[in-house]
Amino acid sequence: MTFRISGVAVTPLSGLGTVRWYRTGGIPDAESVEAADPETELERFEEARESARDELQREREQTAERVGQEEAAVFDAHLQFLDDPQLTDSIQEAIEEGDAAEVGVDRAFGDAVDQFEGMDGMMAERADDMRDIRDRLRRLLAGDERIDLSAVPEGTVILAERLTPSDTAQLDPDRVAGFATVTGGRTSHAAIFARSLGIPAVVGLGEELLEIEERTTVAIDAEKDAVIVDPDEGTRERVSATRDVEIRTGPVETTDGTEIEVAANVGTSAELPGATRQGADGIGLYRTEFLFLDREQPPDEDEQLEVYTDALDAFPDGRIVVRTLDIGGDKPIPYLDADEEENPFLGDRGIRRSLDADADLFETQLRALLRAAMEGSGRLSVMFPLVTTVEELDGARDTVDQVATTLEKEGIPYAVPEIGVMIETPAAVTMAEELAERVDFFSIGTNDLAQYVMAASRESDAVADLHDPLHPAVLRSIRRSVEAAHDTNAWIGMCGEMAGDPDLTELLVGLGLDELSMSAVTIPTVKAEVTATESETARELADRVLSASTKAEVHEYLEGE
Amino acid sequence: MTFRISGVAVTPLSGLGTVRWYRTGGIPDAESVEAADPETELERFEEARESARDELQREREQTAERVGQEEAAVFDAHLQFLDDPQLTDSIQEAIEEGDAAEVGVDRAFGDAVDQFEGMDGMMAERADDMRDIRDRLRRLLAGDERIDLSAVPEGTVILAERLTPSDTAQLDPDRVAGFATVTGGRTSHAAIFARSLGIPAVVGLGEELLEIEERTTVAIDAEKDAVIVDPDEGTRERVSATRDVEIRTGPVETTDGTEIEVAANVGTSAELPGATRQGADGIGLYRTEFLFLDREQPPDEDEQLEVYTDALDAFPDGRIVVRTLDIGGDKPIPYLDADEEENPFLGDRGIRRSLDADADLFETQLRALLRAAMEGSGRLSVMFPLVTTVEELDGARDTVDQVATTLEKEGIPYAVPEIGVMIETPAAVTMAEELAERVDFFSIGTNDLAQYVMAASRESDAVADLHDPLHPAVLRSIRRSVEAAHDTNAWIGMCGEMAGDPDLTELLVGLGLDELSMSAVTIPTVKAEVTATESETARELADRVLSASTKAEVHEYLEGE
Repeated sequence: MTFRISGVAVTPLSGLGTVRWYRTGGIPDAESVEAADPETELERFEEARESARDELQREREQTAERVGQEEAAVFDAHLQFLDDPQLTDSIQEAIEEGDAAEVGVDRAFGDAVDQFEGMDGMMAERADDMRDIRDRLRRLLAGDERIDLSAVPEGTVILAERLTPSDTAQLDPDRVAGFATVTGGRTSHAAIFARSLGIPAVVGLGEELLEIEERTTVAIDAEKDAVIVDPDEGTRERVSATRDVEIRTGPVETTDGTEIEVAANVGTSAELPGATRQGADGIGLYRTEFLFLDREQPPDEDEQLEVYTDALDAFPDGRIVVRTLDIGGDKPIPYLDADEEENPFLGDRGIRRSLDADADLFETQLRALLRAAMEGSGRLSVMFPLVTTVEELDGARDTVDQVATTLEKEGIPYAVPEIGVMIETPAAVTMAEELAERVDFFSIGTNDLAQYVMAASRESDAVADLHDPLHPAVLRSIRRSVEAAHDTNAWIGMCGEMAGDPDLTELLVGLGLDELSMSAVTIPTVKAEVTATESETARELADRVLSASTKAEVHEYLEGE
Repeated sequence: MTFRISGVAVTPLSGLGTVRWYRTGGIPDAESVEAADPETELERFEEARESARDELQREREQTAERVGQEEAAVFDAHLQFLDDPQLTDSIQEAIEEGDAAEVGVDRAFGDAVDQFEGMDGMMAERADDMRDIRDRLRRLLAGDERIDLSAVPEGTVILAERLTPSDTAQLDPDRVAGFATVTGGRTSHAAIFARSLGIPAVVGLGEELLEIEERTTVAIDAEKDAVIVDPDEGTRERVSATRDVEIRTGPVETTDGTEIEVAANVGTSAELPGATRQGADGIGLYRTEFLFLDREQPPDEDEQLEVYTDALDAFPDGRIVVRTLDIGGDKPIPYLDADEEENPFLGDRGIRRSLDADADLFETQLRALLRAAMEGSGRLSVMFPLVTTVEELDGARDTVDQVATTLEKEGIPYAVPEIGVMIETPAAVTMAEELAERVDFFSIGTNDLAQYVMAASRESDAVADLHDPLHPAVLRSIRRSVEAAHDTNAWIGMCGEMAGDPDLTELLVGLGLDELSMSAVTIPTVKAEVTATESETARELADRVLSASTKAEVHEYLEGE
């Protein structure tokens, strides 16, 4: 019988396949292992450590090749911890006192887990690394044979309690039809990897997932945010259909010749090849937060210069829109001084920090960007996040001018890029005319915009129905921003999740957006939609939709098409 | 030398006076008290308890008379705890084992404090009650003679570490020029009492306050949120000026005859006499949350009917605007099922809960309101908080219709009141035309509106500058709401803090607001401002201010007046 387990789809892709469980089970309780003599136990530990080292090095290479150097770095950390003298000494001591290798490993890493869990932010995530290494050693000590994730048959759907970064990196997008996990969220490592690799994935499904049996046929259904067990024919067709879209490189236009730029949202250099592969015209949103996360010190000017230049070189004929550091809210960074807030989404984040608490970081980032604008092949655009007032934009533009003057004096080659703002606060919509006069472009961030216009957090389940860009209030805010931009000959794009929904492409073209930026995997579908759209019909659709008073009416008009 | 200590002004009033310290000092460390024989100690304890009982009963009566029955209820709780068998048994046991009465009291109440502190929400505040009773008993055991708060000389400024509800209730507004405390916040009991009684008060001043000496002259400065020690002549004049405003009863109009309704914001029946005294034309915002706080079960229909009827009877010729229950966000209630949220201000609150999680409460409240509309003398208006969509308003109106139908069937007398919505989300501003078609009136909640339009929490210091209704984006949102209301002949008021700022009265009249509702204490000043305003000049001012691109320009235009 077909049934559905709900979770969170972390890519817009769906898939159909046969279940293979990836289990960490079969490891005996450490205390129940009978210890041999210390010499033998020590040997067992060293062998397990040796195998772990081999595995980690192999996985490190696979990841660097398939995903990227940055993503591979996590394995370096694991390799380092594996040889950490404090940990190994403690294990050896336990063994010499008569314990089994398992007990030594459990205790030493258990202590480390406890230590890291007591810490804040990123350090707390090290506790997960510690668990990963412990589990790997315990598995190897148990002589556990696991399925080789990189060599599953084509059409396999991997189910697991959770997937570590190491696990995810081994997945081969050509063989794996998708994966689903009990734990995890939209921003977990596994989710980020899934998006880079273009693998259908639903996470956070809960314990119910554990009941699905080996070899069952399941659909990974991105549209319904669910795993569907024994799907019916309709579902099978629907989830299978989504992957077969022709990839179009080069610009696309509507049937009557209006060109719409279709670009990719990325967060790391590792995602650039994927964006190119899917036919992106450029990068419509380069999130720079990842550069600053998971490290002890911020990246310096030269490191940033290299990253931005890489992006520009990846699209020599395209445009790369880099968003300056957008932290605070849900993205705290350990080395920055940020207070915990009751309502972080209404707090110190985005350009607010760049003009105040993080002014030094902002200046360094702008220096790197202005230099990259000169050095890289593509065209650079820089945009500021969470702009709420004209004063903030003026302040940010002043900083760009100051940085240019300094670079000039220092004789360092630079160019001043296009400057734009994200439209993501109601105030920015209200002040759109004044903002448009001062910039080259707007990019609408529909996730935050919907959140603020509707006063409904995108993280609260209780108000999920309100947090939806198809409410008339959000659509009207988009229309108003488009009009203000076009009145001053600025271009306007959209880089929120809405932009990547192919069901809304016609509406967005009709609303007048010049650019749509999205997860690379949806680009082919959206490009296909653009080429099937007729501008006048789209405008009529938009006008009709804009006349709606309720979300229900919006849906009626959209489905009436 | 004059100097300033910054805190939080909890009323809009300023005052000037001579310091009298209200100290709990002089109580010896419990362990250092030499115990007499158990019989004597038991007698000392009983005497202290008897005195405490007398004091509490006296304070209870004073409060009921001066402030209100609801506020007096706290003393009932204290009286009950004073006779709690578990506490008294534990104290007697300690004494019988040879301890001094002080030790017994400290231990018994200390344990109770610990117990309550481990609990959530309102129960945790019981810990404060326990401390109050303990301190009272300890003071009485020490034979401490305290200044009689109800009998200080005229022009006294009371300074204290903190003031308990009992302390505050003793203050005589005719004698006390103000008070200032080391601890406390805007929503502490002392703050609420200060607002009811119209006493200048600054709280949360920190340890620095302790350095001010007895008999010093200080100003309680609401405008600067500070206590100013040895104030200069300018400050003295400024803070003294604010209290001498003629109280006008009856409606006021501009020089050219436009009537502006000036009403009071209240939260309890106890505040009604204060509102009448200050010349309020009616109640522009009756917050019903207090009715639901600090209790184990929600108030039933009859209890609510009585409260609402009291309000209507207090203003037989006026209008009473009752806001339906607005909880969630910063106002959790223990007996309601509410999840903790990452961003409570963007979560499940206001009408969202009334249409879903709290539908039963909503129906009961509406039944009480419709019955009160028939029973009370004044005119009742009901408004819904945090309306974001047209669907929500339609849903709330449907519930009103259903309640009316049921009352009709039951043969219970009722009347359908005026219906309105709070304008406090950007979506409500965007959909103002559609909302206005469906209601009799709007009331703009500027605190929340500014918070959402500017994406800046009113509780975050880091973004305090953004959370300001004088940003052009907020002012334009107000203008838009006024236009939408007047296009459909709905009236529009304002009940946020902005409405009570006399420096903005001319601007608000110029923007077209028909009603302004505020803390009772500012009504005389705002009424005076209205009578000095000329409509056409006010409109010109509003147009000029609305043309500003920045908050700085807004200030320029306002000060150019």
